[in-house]
Amino acid sequence: MIPLLGIPELEEGDDLAATIVEAAARGTGFDQYDVLVVAQKAVSKVEGRVVQLTGVEASERARELAGDSDPRRIEVILGEAREVLRARPPLVIAETRHGFVCASAGVDGSNAKGTDTLVLLPLDPDASAARLRSSVRELAGVEIGVIVSDSFGRAWRLGTTDVALGVAGIVAVMDLDGQRDSLGYELHSTQIAVADEIAGAAQLVMGKLDGIPAAIVRGLELAGDGLGSDLVMPRERDLFR
Amino acid sequence: MIPLLGIPELEEGDDLAATIVEAAARGTGFDQYDVLVVAQKAVSKVEGRVVQLTGVEASERARELAGDSDPRRIEVILGEAREVLRARPPLVIAETRHGFVCASAGVDGSNAKGTDTLVLLPLDPDASAARLRSSVRELAGVEIGVIVSDSFGRAWRLGTTDVALGVAGIVAVMDLDGQRDSLGYELHSTQIAVADEIAGAAQLVMGKLDGIPAAIVRGLELAGDGLGSDLVMPRERDLFR
Repeated sequence: MIPLLGIPELEEGDDLAATIVEAAARGTGFDQYDVLVVAQKAVSKVEGRVVQLTGVEASERARELAGDSDPRRIEVILGEAREVLRARPPLVIAETRHGFVCASAGVDGSNAKGTDTLVLLPLDPDASAARLRSSVRELAGVEIGVIVSDSFGRAWRLGTTDVALGVAGIVAVMDLDGQRDSLGYELHSTQIAVADEIAGAAQLVMGKLDGIPAAIVRGLELAGDGLGSDLVMPRERDLFR
Repeated sequence: MIPLLGIPELEEGDDLAATIVEAAARGTGFDQYDVLVVAQKAVSKVEGRVVQLTGVEASERARELAGDSDPRRIEVILGEAREVLRARPPLVIAETRHGFVCASAGVDGSNAKGTDTLVLLPLDPDASAARLRSSVRELAGVEIGVIVSDSFGRAWRLGTTDVALGVAGIVAVMDLDGQRDSLGYELHSTQIAVADEIAGAAQLVMGKLDGIPAAIVRGLELAGDGLGSDLVMPRERDLFR
């Protein structure tokens, strides 16, 4: 796991892939089949998925859910949400338009420029990952995997772990359905969310306070064509809705 | 991340720490502050947390929940469960006596000797981790962290990731409450479940089919006194009960 150091604060329109390839070149560079993990917030910023609170008008519902917090922030969250699952002011757990269930529908204030700025999730994280992958291929001549990651809370467990919102060029869910383990016992539909585990591993070197928006995970041998959307539990299989 | 190879099939009473120290010595050995991740199943087996289905008698409730599956298996699961959260025969999501919410109350058939054997979670995974830590200190003269890991499903997301059931000698939840990020924006109660991320990272090299029950994660600098129980969401804060 190799953190990519020296990536400057990003803005809309910045060439994220070029910045990442330069940062990698200052270290070991990219190897074939490396997995590049990039924080969602970096991707969202260069894609202009940023909202200024000035100009946002809070609806009645936003004011209800806000409690003592800024109702304009809740208004932005409601705009990103397909469904609100739980609300305990000012905490909102919602399903995003992508199908992700997470706090604040993925809307985040921390690390955005100034406290009046909110960062939204990318419109299509899998497309963002695919674009980064293809740009790195062009710029550095290597075939890599890409994960766009974000920190999600979990039901029943304390704290966040980083998970994969967007995936390109690697396996997202490794399916051991019907395979046999080392004792010959058949494993029934064991699916391992490897892309989430890689995102979590990268978080350990990217940190939260260090402002390191990207890391390389090397040596996994997980080339494939998984998607971040593969990691979303289909509604009809979900026991917790 | 270094998988520990050549660990034989384990049985009750085996010296797991000695086996692990030997396996490590065949490779790079242990460094000070390494984190040793050990699969729960290996720990449970040496601790004798194994049940033979022969001799188990299924209750009425177990038969109801079993559907077409073996009701004796469900009986064992009910014996491990404090509360059944969801049941869709033969799938049971339950809270264990430790407070973990997971499939089958952590009861597992795969990888146990023969299909008539079930493996239960350790009685006290934090104590198991602490014992392993102290044995490795004695045998190898190094201060390490230990995680006892297991594969858990998640609400809303497909596939399992490995999480930390027992922890010793490292931080479990990294609390960034009130700290400021690189732009000076205050992070509100950001808690990162680093022990779960380490467990997931180790799973990537331990695999499911390869029968590798342990791995070393090096270079984290996360020495501390966290516990696996720190990662259980307190019931009163849980929005999904």
